[in-house]
Amino acid sequence: MDLVLIAAPITGVIALIFAMYKAKYVEGANPGNDRMREIASYIEEGAMAFLKREYRAVAVFMAVFFVVLTFAIDWQTAVCFVIGGIFSLAAGFSGMKVATKANVRTANAAKEEGMTKALNIAFSGGSVMGMSVVGLGLLGIGALYIIFENASIVTGFSLGASSVALFARVGGGIYTKAADVGADLVGKVEAGIPEDDPRNPAVIADNVGDNVGDVAGMGADLFESYVGAIISAITLGLVAFGEAGVKYAFALSAVGIIASIIGVYFVRGDKDPQKALNNGTLVSSVITIIAAFVLSRVLLGSLRPFVSILSGLVVGLIIGRVTEYYTSADYKPVKKIAKESETGSSTNIIGGLSVGMMSTGIPIVIICIGIIVSFVALSGGLNGDIDITGGLYGIALAAVGMLSTTGMTIAVDAYGPISDNAGGIAEMCDLPEEVREVTDKLDAVGNTTAAVGKGFAIGSAALTALSLFSSYTQAVNLSGIELTKPTVIVGLFIGGVLPFIFSAMTMDAVGKAANDMIEEVRRQFREIPGIMEGKATPEYGTCVDISTKAALREMIVPGVMAVVVPLIVGLLLGAEALGGLLAGSLVTGVLMAIFMANSGGAWDNAKKYIEEGHHGGKGSEAHKAAVVGDTVGDPFKDTSGPSLNILIKLMTVVALTFAPLL
Amino acid sequence: MDLVLIAAPITGVIALIFAMYKAKYVEGANPGNDRMREIASYIEEGAMAFLKREYRAVAVFMAVFFVVLTFAIDWQTAVCFVIGGIFSLAAGFSGMKVATKANVRTANAAKEEGMTKALNIAFSGGSVMGMSVVGLGLLGIGALYIIFENASIVTGFSLGASSVALFARVGGGIYTKAADVGADLVGKVEAGIPEDDPRNPAVIADNVGDNVGDVAGMGADLFESYVGAIISAITLGLVAFGEAGVKYAFALSAVGIIASIIGVYFVRGDKDPQKALNNGTLVSSVITIIAAFVLSRVLLGSLRPFVSILSGLVVGLIIGRVTEYYTSADYKPVKKIAKESETGSSTNIIGGLSVGMMSTGIPIVIICIGIIVSFVALSGGLNGDIDITGGLYGIALAAVGMLSTTGMTIAVDAYGPISDNAGGIAEMCDLPEEVREVTDKLDAVGNTTAAVGKGFAIGSAALTALSLFSSYTQAVNLSGIELTKPTVIVGLFIGGVLPFIFSAMTMDAVGKAANDMIEEVRRQFREIPGIMEGKATPEYGTCVDISTKAALREMIVPGVMAVVVPLIVGLLLGAEALGGLLAGSLVTGVLMAIFMANSGGAWDNAKKYIEEGHHGGKGSEAHKAAVVGDTVGDPFKDTSGPSLNILIKLMTVVALTFAPLL
Repeated sequence: MDLVLIAAPITGVIALIFAMYKAKYVEGANPGNDRMREIASYIEEGAMAFLKREYRAVAVFMAVFFVVLTFAIDWQTAVCFVIGGIFSLAAGFSGMKVATKANVRTANAAKEEGMTKALNIAFSGGSVMGMSVVGLGLLGIGALYIIFENASIVTGFSLGASSVALFARVGGGIYTKAADVGADLVGKVEAGIPEDDPRNPAVIADNVGDNVGDVAGMGADLFESYVGAIISAITLGLVAFGEAGVKYAFALSAVGIIASIIGVYFVRGDKDPQKALNNGTLVSSVITIIAAFVLSRVLLGSLRPFVSILSGLVVGLIIGRVTEYYTSADYKPVKKIAKESETGSSTNIIGGLSVGMMSTGIPIVIICIGIIVSFVALSGGLNGDIDITGGLYGIALAAVGMLSTTGMTIAVDAYGPISDNAGGIAEMCDLPEEVREVTDKLDAVGNTTAAVGKGFAIGSAALTALSLFSSYTQAVNLSGIELTKPTVIVGLFIGGVLPFIFSAMTMDAVGKAANDMIEEVRRQFREIPGIMEGKATPEYGTCVDISTKAALREMIVPGVMAVVVPLIVGLLLGAEALGGLLAGSLVTGVLMAIFMANSGGAWDNAKKYIEEGHHGGKGSEAHKAAVVGDTVGDPFKDTSGPSLNILIKLMTVVALTFAPLL
Repeated sequence: MDLVLIAAPITGVIALIFAMYKAKYVEGANPGNDRMREIASYIEEGAMAFLKREYRAVAVFMAVFFVVLTFAIDWQTAVCFVIGGIFSLAAGFSGMKVATKANVRTANAAKEEGMTKALNIAFSGGSVMGMSVVGLGLLGIGALYIIFENASIVTGFSLGASSVALFARVGGGIYTKAADVGADLVGKVEAGIPEDDPRNPAVIADNVGDNVGDVAGMGADLFESYVGAIISAITLGLVAFGEAGVKYAFALSAVGIIASIIGVYFVRGDKDPQKALNNGTLVSSVITIIAAFVLSRVLLGSLRPFVSILSGLVVGLIIGRVTEYYTSADYKPVKKIAKESETGSSTNIIGGLSVGMMSTGIPIVIICIGIIVSFVALSGGLNGDIDITGGLYGIALAAVGMLSTTGMTIAVDAYGPISDNAGGIAEMCDLPEEVREVTDKLDAVGNTTAAVGKGFAIGSAALTALSLFSSYTQAVNLSGIELTKPTVIVGLFIGGVLPFIFSAMTMDAVGKAANDMIEEVRRQFREIPGIMEGKATPEYGTCVDISTKAALREMIVPGVMAVVVPLIVGLLLGAEALGGLLAGSLVTGVLMAIFMANSGGAWDNAKKYIEEGHHGGKGSEAHKAAVVGDTVGDPFKDTSGPSLNILIKLMTVVALTFAPLL
């Protein structure tokens, strides 16, 4: 047994131990007074209620798929599939469990000990999610690869991860926005009570949504990318470099975990939380880069693989910056939307749509450059007598490189919704103004990290799907995917249209679920006496229940579509047409995901910018127009956009797993 | 010299003679009283002013390109290019000239003679545009093919048509919406005067816009498709069937023209204009189908080519119906948006976006089925030992089939803006209520035909671009376009992102141009004394001038991008990557075009549906919300969406023309 291979699952275990240690730290903190603990317990219960029902749905889905896989492929792949699913669920469970404890403790720390401690708790909570994802991911793939010694069987693990991601990200995305929109429309607009007001029956569901969508959903999304990138790297590495190619991918992922753990210690709370978080990210990136350099020489005897890794890391960083540019109020695009809000909702909407569409340009060019560089680094060129498998391995390494510090990225990202929740609890418990100043500051930073995290999630989904696509072309043993053939063109068109249909469905789903919520909130306002005076407690549980049921109901059709359509096209029109489908959905999926995420982010921050007093400030006509954009942006950026990450990866993994049938 | 070949340009001449005859008929009608003639002359002058300035811009563009083509390719291609450009301009000129005469005469006929005569004049006006397009198109290609006996040289004609289409459709699209939005925002919203009020300085520009965008723009768009489809059919037909393949394409186009002329006589004005128009379309379709059947047997000795033709015709018809379903208030989608308007602008916007995205599904599936059927009809199968060139010829024939009755399609389509203008003139001249009832009825039918026409334009652009793409792959003599190569994937991504950038740019262009207009209208309201009391005439000319300048200025960057990016990618990354780019832009271009056109159409009709008294009717909260959606939809459906038709065709033609360099 090789030391490097064993090191991978062991590092996974180290990450999990670190996650437990951080979880203990969070739990050890003071959860505040009775009222705070009461509110927090509602949120925790709500989140767990969603998870429970999600588990039941996932269990049915996985049981069916387990049987199909056992008969259609083999039992080993089916077992890997189940383990992949369970590991993803476990990561989501622990991350969310701790997040729902960290929120109230962050609020209390803000009250009793100030910014430093509050940041510390919020970020520690986030790091549990981060470390659980990478720990379980690397442990799972590493151990299964050692056991089965077969990359194609381990692909089942990736399929399991993708299946859970579908439920967590799509279901979670519908949940969070149904609750958010429902709470806002009846609470803020109809009843005229502020956000996070405890009299609003949907307020708990709204806060649960932050955890369900932004913590667990994001975690499952990146778990899928992380796992998919490693698996395609070992699949292609084996062909290109033999066992050494596999080891390099594992070693690099292990190093990334250690680097992330070290990075966590550099997130030190001084006055500026953004700077603290940036420090941590910087440290883990630098360590990973140095290690990638050394490992490249030692394991593969060349610096070329390092170039591929580096290009992936750089692409990830640049996409993050570009996302910030298009969605932060510090730059021109958001300011332009804010200005356009002065002439009403329509110009605000057109402005936001146009910013989102425009924002696809640079990321795509950057991804293209990354593809070319990482490919050429190992192929030796673009045409003629080149090493194509080497080049494809290079692209997979770029994905691994981009995702190597995922532990840190998720920690930074999950910190956001925890702070957001902390602010909500502070509001609901009437904590003093200065407490909310601290949580607001944490939350504001969280908004930027969330936008950057979304960009990262899309970029990594693109690279992961692309390298899984390369693995697919290897797996079906095609002589090629010939774009001049009508079947491939048809595949390309059908693949291209799926993200549009999927987005339409998820947007409608939010609408329907929000409607259910609106009806229920209105009912409670009408039927519970004393609710508006704060004398009676609203029935938070029924609202939580409505979001949960609606989310899981509404995700069935798009979810089934994502699994079934590639199989139908593959069986009807052949493996080549399926290749076209995957390429088509990859391209439009990435474009639509960037478009929707950035339009949504830009609208959100344009509204906040106006609320800071620009263009007439709160209550002005410009503000009203900006609120419309913000509401349109909600399903864009938190439901439909992120769901596309799942769609493109899931379809590719399904194709890859079922490749032996084609 | 072959009789069938000569028949093509001769039929073109017949179409032109018929156009002249119809033009005379329109001119012979009574243009009404002094006031009507005055208003009409403003519109005519404004339209001609736009054309003049457009010609100057086109002249510069074509001079540069002529030199480039002469040196880079050969002088023959360059000459064909100039002729193609001039022919497209001539078609646009005559169509618009007559349209600006038909509008006032339609209004007067509605006043003096009623519906039958009014429909007759409006439709005759439209048929001049239709017959000019197909007449000049077939005359041009037919004559040039006879002269040069070389399909690849005649491609220059197509490039000329595409270049003019860029100016006419993109520039025209910006023009019409800048004027429309500008007129509405200051007139209706700020000053509170009704639509088409002569006190509004932008009102003439708005009416000019209907002609510039919806008559000339649409005409140039379909001229490009018509010409492109025939050229790729003769290119591929020559390879697949020799001279007989060329003849079949020409003969079919000639028959389509004759069928359209006959069809025109079946548009008889009884009480129901929609039915009259449908009759005409039906008659010309049936004649074409029968002729295609006979010609297929006679010229090619087989019914297989007929199947390809038929599939194209059917695809066109179904796309028209689907478009109607998603954009007409008679069906669920628009009713849903109207209902969602009750909860405000944001739900109206989300609803419209989601309907637009969803509406891409069926057309894409239909196009895919059409591709497969038309290919298999002539290839004999999808895999194995098949006749690939034959199959590609089949796809090109589908495009020719779909476009064979273009003369009729444009006539029906251009009838819409003429009726719209007639209504505007009736309003501005204070004609009696019953006159406006007639023009309103004509206009309402025009809205449906406009939506259907848009669907047809997109569908035909898709098939044309696809068959031009096939010609490209033949022309560069590639062994294939290998989707597993990173350069092709990069090409696919870059091609995919262009429609997003292009849409963002054209939307911004409308915004900027509308702003210029708003400033000017406000200035006139402020500075011209007595303007609001109707005592002073506004300076219509300056508004027309602003729209014109802005439109031509704002289209430069997107236009240059469309021409230059494919060349750069081709020269940098090779012919295969350029193939990827064309496929990528084809897929996302078609998707975005359908999405934007149908969202826009659905918002428009949702507003009208509410105005009819549903959900509170005019002035209700639902109506206000629906107005927002309608305004967002304006650049969607009339600028950005249709401009994408041009983008995908132009890039493919550029690639095809410059193929010898790659």
